[in-house]
Amino acid sequence: MKIAILGGTGEQGPGLALRLAIAGEEVIIGSRNKERAEKVATELNAELGGTRIQGAENAQAAQAAEIVMMTVPYSAHLSTLEGVKAQVQGKIFVDVSVPLDPENPRRMKMPPAGSATEEAQEFLGPGTKVVAAFQNVAAHLLRDPKHAIDCDILVCGNDVEAKKTVISLIAKMGLKGYDVGTADSSRVVEGLTSILIRLNIRHKVKGAGIRLTGLPQ
Amino acid sequence: MKIAILGGTGEQGPGLALRLAIAGEEVIIGSRNKERAEKVATELNAELGGTRIQGAENAQAAQAAEIVMMTVPYSAHLSTLEGVKAQVQGKIFVDVSVPLDPENPRRMKMPPAGSATEEAQEFLGPGTKVVAAFQNVAAHLLRDPKHAIDCDILVCGNDVEAKKTVISLIAKMGLKGYDVGTADSSRVVEGLTSILIRLNIRHKVKGAGIRLTGLPQ
Repeated sequence: MKIAILGGTGEQGPGLALRLAIAGEEVIIGSRNKERAEKVATELNAELGGTRIQGAENAQAAQAAEIVMMTVPYSAHLSTLEGVKAQVQGKIFVDVSVPLDPENPRRMKMPPAGSATEEAQEFLGPGTKVVAAFQNVAAHLLRDPKHAIDCDILVCGNDVEAKKTVISLIAKMGLKGYDVGTADSSRVVEGLTSILIRLNIRHKVKGAGIRLTGLPQ
Repeated sequence: MKIAILGGTGEQGPGLALRLAIAGEEVIIGSRNKERAEKVATELNAELGGTRIQGAENAQAAQAAEIVMMTVPYSAHLSTLEGVKAQVQGKIFVDVSVPLDPENPRRMKMPPAGSATEEAQEFLGPGTKVVAAFQNVAAHLLRDPKHAIDCDILVCGNDVEAKKTVISLIAKMGLKGYDVGTADSSRVVEGLTSILIRLNIRHKVKGAGIRLTGLPQ
């Protein structure tokens, strides 16, 4: 499968790209700057000893992919969505955004839609299947594919089949994903990120995460 | 320490009472109905082979206690708060409430204050130290004190010392509590409950919970 990662040169993009490429997927790192995307792709390919990762400008990456992921900082959420709206119609769109308050990243500043995921679904329209995932997993853990990650991936969105596709992709990446409900569940999932950031600061660690318990394995 | 559990004859009250009594605390089960509270207290004492648990009407229980917990269904949140406002001044008030939508308990219906915890703090005023805890732990697991519970307790509120007191009480109950921030964090903690309810339904279990990972033990 061809998967684009918009904003893929940022914190979480390279780790997602590496784990997807190792799982056998074709990955296109997207960036506003094509050269930066290509540079990161080249570095990741060298690390992997492969050629599965390419770089492209965001809209081109979205156009070429079957599944589009987005990991931009929240300040670029709407502008990035605007630049790829036409290219993601009919596709699964995985939003990894977390609307942290720019004045205090330990707090959330939820958009009027309720969450970044709901905002994306509203903006992209019903033709795009928006799924939220990966908000709670630390970037440096994703980036180190040799190590197992002690964090479950909470997946939500309004399209059941799209969530199933994303959850099976997550399994191929060596992680466990759980369907935790419709798009509005993302208010909780995105909010958990600010709690994990606070726990990281308080406990002087970088990788606080969560596991669901009491469920059949 | 004397601890009241308002609405203590309901789902979570008996389990909290048992675990607190086993930890050596004096517990007063509160209820709108004094006889029902005394009946539950008698049953729990028989189970424990002790006399540490008493029953009383809610306001009397709150008056007699040093720490007041409340586990009423959300529909009785404000009316119960109203009945004990005078009695809880200067005390730690542990709110276990979750504002589930009465029309669909798999969804939240957050009060205008943002969460039940913030609503309680606003209503009781700055003289009472409201702390949120125990929203994510299944009632039947609390009720079975012989078994360890695979669920962390997320604790939040605006008073740091009050949270410390509650976290040490949680430790005495054989559980692990984490300070996850100020009262507004309860929007996420309370919201998690509806996610756990949905996971219970989907996976046909009763005890879905969460663990924090990546933190120093």
